[in-house]
Parts: sequence; C-alpha cells; structure tokens
Amino acid sequence: MSLEKIDGARIAARDLQPFVESVFRAAGTDQPSAAAVSTALVDASSRAFDTHGVRLVPFYMQGLEGGRINRAPTLTVTRKAPSIVHIDADDGLGHLASYRAIEEASRIAAETGVAVATVGRSSHHGATGCYTRFAALSGFAALGMTHADSAVIPYGGTSAFFGTNPISFAVPAPGEDPILLDMATSAIPFNRVELRRATGTPLPPEIAVDKTGAFTTDANAAVAVGPVGGATFGYKGSGLASMVDLLCSAFTGMGHGRTLSAFGGPDWSKPIPIGHFFIVMSPALFQTLAVFDERIASFLTDLRAQPAKPGFEVQAPGDLEKAEAKRRETTGLPIDPVTWAAFNAYAARFGIPLPRDVGEA
Amino acid sequence: MSLEKIDGARIAARDLQPFVESVFRAAGTDQPSAAAVSTALVDASSRAFDTHGVRLVPFYMQGLEGGRINRAPTLTVTRKAPSIVHIDADDGLGHLASYRAIEEASRIAAETGVAVATVGRSSHHGATGCYTRFAALSGFAALGMTHADSAVIPYGGTSAFFGTNPISFAVPAPGEDPILLDMATSAIPFNRVELRRATGTPLPPEIAVDKTGAFTTDANAAVAVGPVGGATFGYKGSGLASMVDLLCSAFTGMGHGRTLSAFGGPDWSKPIPIGHFFIVMSPALFQTLAVFDERIASFLTDLRAQPAKPGFEVQAPGDLEKAEAKRRETTGLPIDPVTWAAFNAYAARFGIPLPRDVGEA
Repeated sequence: MSLEKIDGARIAARDLQPFVESVFRAAGTDQPSAAAVSTALVDASSRAFDTHGVRLVPFYMQGLEGGRINRAPTLTVTRKAPSIVHIDADDGLGHLASYRAIEEASRIAAETGVAVATVGRSSHHGATGCYTRFAALSGFAALGMTHADSAVIPYGGTSAFFGTNPISFAVPAPGEDPILLDMATSAIPFNRVELRRATGTPLPPEIAVDKTGAFTTDANAAVAVGPVGGATFGYKGSGLASMVDLLCSAFTGMGHGRTLSAFGGPDWSKPIPIGHFFIVMSPALFQTLAVFDERIASFLTDLRAQPAKPGFEVQAPGDLEKAEAKRRETTGLPIDPVTWAAFNAYAARFGIPLPRDVGEA
Repeated sequence: MSLEKIDGARIAARDLQPFVESVFRAAGTDQPSAAAVSTALVDASSRAFDTHGVRLVPFYMQGLEGGRINRAPTLTVTRKAPSIVHIDADDGLGHLASYRAIEEASRIAAETGVAVATVGRSSHHGATGCYTRFAALSGFAALGMTHADSAVIPYGGTSAFFGTNPISFAVPAPGEDPILLDMATSAIPFNRVELRRATGTPLPPEIAVDKTGAFTTDANAAVAVGPVGGATFGYKGSGLASMVDLLCSAFTGMGHGRTLSAFGGPDWSKPIPIGHFFIVMSPALFQTLAVFDERIASFLTDLRAQPAKPGFEVQAPGDLEKAEAKRRETTGLPIDPVTWAAFNAYAARFGIPLPRDVGEA
C-alpha cells in the first residue's frame, strides 16, 4: 500500500490528543467516551492510518450533536458463556465499547486461552486495528472485525450491499511494535474515497463505481467501491465481507449491514446500531513464550529478507505504517485542509486553543 | 468463481468413496485414516471443489508409500487450557487430525461458547472447508486455516514464500446446507494450476509467475502464484497469508511455511510437519437460535436478491458449489483424465474393482 500525500498542518500527537478530547468534551461527551475516541483517532493518525484518523472528528461530532450517538452511555457487560462476553454499547461511541471489549476478553483469555467479545448497539469505532493492537500491546493476539452500512458492491452486483467490513489481526512481536494487519475487505475503504475527495486526487481504476454502477476514478462521483479481488477474484472479497457481516450481526444480535441506515446521513438523530466481533487469545497458553517469540521473530526475519521487485521491499503486515509512525514522531501528524478548517472552527466555537502547527518537516 | 471444465469419467459419490478408501487401505493405511481421507476427498469432489478432491489421491498415496505420512498414527489430544485443545497428528494424514480437531473443539465450545483447536505435526488435509462444514453440519460455526509449503510470492516479492494458506468459514443456515467460504489467500490455489495442467487449459493473466519471476498463463511453466489483490492490492492477500501462517505455526508449535520442505518432492520419505488452526463457536450461546437463524436467513435472502450485472447473479459464499453439488448428485463426480488413469492403475495393482463410469450426463 502507498501512503496518501496530505497537504495541511502538522501537529504533534501529544498536542493533538488533548485538543481532540477537548472538542468532544465541549460537545457534551462524557470523559470516558471522549478519552476513548480521541485516543483511537490520534493512534490511527500516528500510525499513518489517515483514512481512520482525526479526519473523522467532524463525522463523530455530527453524530454526537445530532443525537445519533449517546454522549454518556452506560456499557453493560454480560458473560454469556465461560469464554464469551457481550458488551452492550448503549448507542455510545464504538471506540469506548471496543476498548472495553478487548479488556474484558483479555481477562477471560488469560484464564481460558481464548475469548470472544461481541459488541452490540454500538456505532462506528474508527480503525479496528486500534483495538487488536491494544490487545497485542498487553501480550495477547487478537482478531477484530466490524460491519458497517452499505458501501461495497457484492461480486457480480451493481449496487452497494456490504460495508467495507474490515478484518484486523494483531500479534505481539518480540522487541518491536506488534504485527498488525488491518484491511478493508473492499478493494479500498470508502474512507479513502473521502480522503481523496479532501486531497483532490483521483482513484485507481476499477475500484469504485458511480451511481449508474459504472467504474469511475472520480472520487466525487464514486458512490460505492468493489470487493478486494476485483473483476476476476472479487468473490473472495465478497466472501470475506459476508463472514464479517455475519459475525457482526448474527453473533451480536444486530441486523446485517444492509439493514443499517446510511452513516453519512441525512438523518443524524437516530441510533444506527452496529456490531463488532473480537477474538482474543493468550499466546502463552498455546506454546511457551520462548517458542512463540522465536516463531514470530523467525517469520519476520525470513519474510523481510525476501528478494523484491525493483522499487519494492517485502514487508510484514504493518511495516509500512510502522516506518511512517517513526517519522511522524518527529514531523508531527499531517492534517488535511478540510479537517484543519474544521479544527479551526471548533477552536473558535468552543474557545479551545488550536494545537501548534509544527509545519512541513 | 467459474467452475473448471473436466473431461473424463463420472462416478457416483457412493461408489467413489469406498473405492478411494480401499486404495488407501491396500497401501497399508489404517482404517480411521483411510476413512477420513476418502470422506474428505469425495466430499470436496461432491461439492465441486475439484482442486482439492479425489485428484489428490496419488499425492497422498505417494506420501504414504514413501514414508512421509504415517499410515497408522496415534493422535494425542491435549487440553492446553479450558478453551484450547491441541491435537498432535503423529505425522499422519491431516484429514484424520482435522476431523478430530473439530470434534474436540465442538465438545468444548458447547460448554464455553468458543474453542480453539490447534493441530501440529500434521500433513496436507485437502480442502479446509471439509472441516468447517463438518462443524456447521452439527450446528457450530467454525473458522479454519492451514499453512503449507512455499508456492505464493509475497506482495512486492519475486519468489515463493507463503503457502496458498486458505481461510474457511462455515455457519449453519436454516433449511439448507451451511454457508461455506473456503478460499486460498493466493489469487488461485496452486492446486488449480495443477488441475489446469491436467486439463490443458491456460491460466488467467497476472496470476502465476514462472521461474524467472515473470507472469505466465502457461500452467506448465508456472512455479508460483501471486497473493489475492494482484499487482495493486496484493498486500491484502499477503497480509491474510501472514495471519494464516502465524496462527498455524507460532500457535501450533510448527515452523512457518517457508521452513517446510516442498510438498511436491523430490523427497517423499521424511515427514513435513505442518499446523492447522480452527476456531469453533456455539451460536446458541451467543443469541437464541431463533434470533440467530432469523439473522442468517435474512442475510441470505437479501444478498441473493441483489441486482446483478448481465450474466451474473449475486450469490452467498458456497452457492455456486451448492448448485453444482446438486447436479452432481445425478450426474456423478467428474474425474479428470490424469486421475482416471491413476485410478485404473491402482485398480489393476491392488485388484480392486473400478467404480462404474456413469458417463457424461
């Protein structure tokens, strides 16, 4: 994957997180919810996951202020079986419920080896990889999924049915940040279409369709994207999207993706109850940690040493983002112009000081 | 996915399974192993999964007769934690250990809600979907994976690193056969290259590479295939392949795929110890079965009713194979000419009557 080029302000993560938290607090969001959403969004932006980073602040603000999202939810945790826990998110921000799901599932997995946490009556939780990585930073391996409203045409179809339905997998790696896979089961996440609208750059060919169902490279004309695998092998992407949708609906009690109202409005007043699905495992109960760490390390060493095509290097999942995260520690996090304008407006409206623009590195 | 055209004999499943079992028994395979492998292969052929069907009989025979595969293994089952069970396959056929893994994990999942079964010191188990579907036929949902020897170039790479590393997911569906996803994380399984060699048909473009690393449509020249997602989005396929390889190695105690000797020989005497990874869940412990069944049914109804491009219909995972399985109940299972010649040779060598060719329907 190539990283998007973003022209705009650059803000240090340590300045950005409290600013974002303050914006959410000023809109009446309770402290745990504001802390969770700002942590997740700044984490994603820090790790170069810009499609799911702080550019989503206005999206959540609209939901919180419109009444779609509960600003002070009461989470309910139910142990459905010895290795299953369910979190009812009370229509609050998905970030809060998802961090909680990982905490609860990790506690169980430490005893039983594996636990599933289902989340219901939730809302958009940003990048699913924030939560699987959170588990891995505590020594657990995690698989995470979420479904969403329709934005992806099924294989052979002409109109949107699936959400971008991401799959994320994180596993601790000795001496470095966790290995982190976090991928939409669509060719690209619809958020990337939105980011391309903000940055004014065209889309790759045969990835997105316009309202007539024809492929387009115009981000502004795109209304849906296709499944990973494209015209020939898109049944694989559709199959993975089906799996994610089923695990996030039949197993959480929610309806499947196409029963959900559009996340993008026009109605921002009513909850759109979605589900998330997490599997958390305790590696130490599978193998000794010495064996486990040796296996992970030898996989990484071997993969990264593979011969590459000119202009490429063979990388492990998340390596590209890790390298960019390292750079951003000194250069700050890039904020696109549309998001930066929104931040200026929030700062003025709520009387919150704008974080300092550290400029182009 | 389009089904392969196969010219050759057509045999009824009820005749084919005892023939295949007898061939394995004649080669000295114990009864449980011969029953497991013949059941899995005929199941795959019955469901139009021809790449992983009875065409693999000579492959397993070579391993059993060469000494690579233990003809009379003693499986060891270890409950590593309340929701984890490990099966040591004793270098036997992967099919026996994989069915056993599902049985053990299902028993645990009925109590705890979810169980992981890891399999170690195993061998090639055919189609992973045989085992997840086996779980679903008993009312469980299952996710299954296996790794394999190197046949797939990583994204940006020039030589094989990953196995075709399939992911399978099965879930019970009310009033019909389970929903079944069973996909290689490569663009195509390497078995499909072999099937195209047998049937003499070319490969799709930009799917397979020759020994110089260049793309080829010649099945006989192909030495490796690429990850799903192709030239632009292949990092997704590589990411999924990494996940499968890690779950089947670090969690099972086996080495990662590239540490494995080539399944295709030339050495057929030494075990090539691989791992499989299964997650089994009990739907009734997540939701009432009434809610669960309603969710599954409404997903299927809605998906199948989606508008389609000319010449397509929108299908759920496994629908294409279900329709063909129905046809094969009357037409018999197609056997390609290379496999049919091998069956003739086994029949002569072991004095086993050939199953009746029911001819083209």
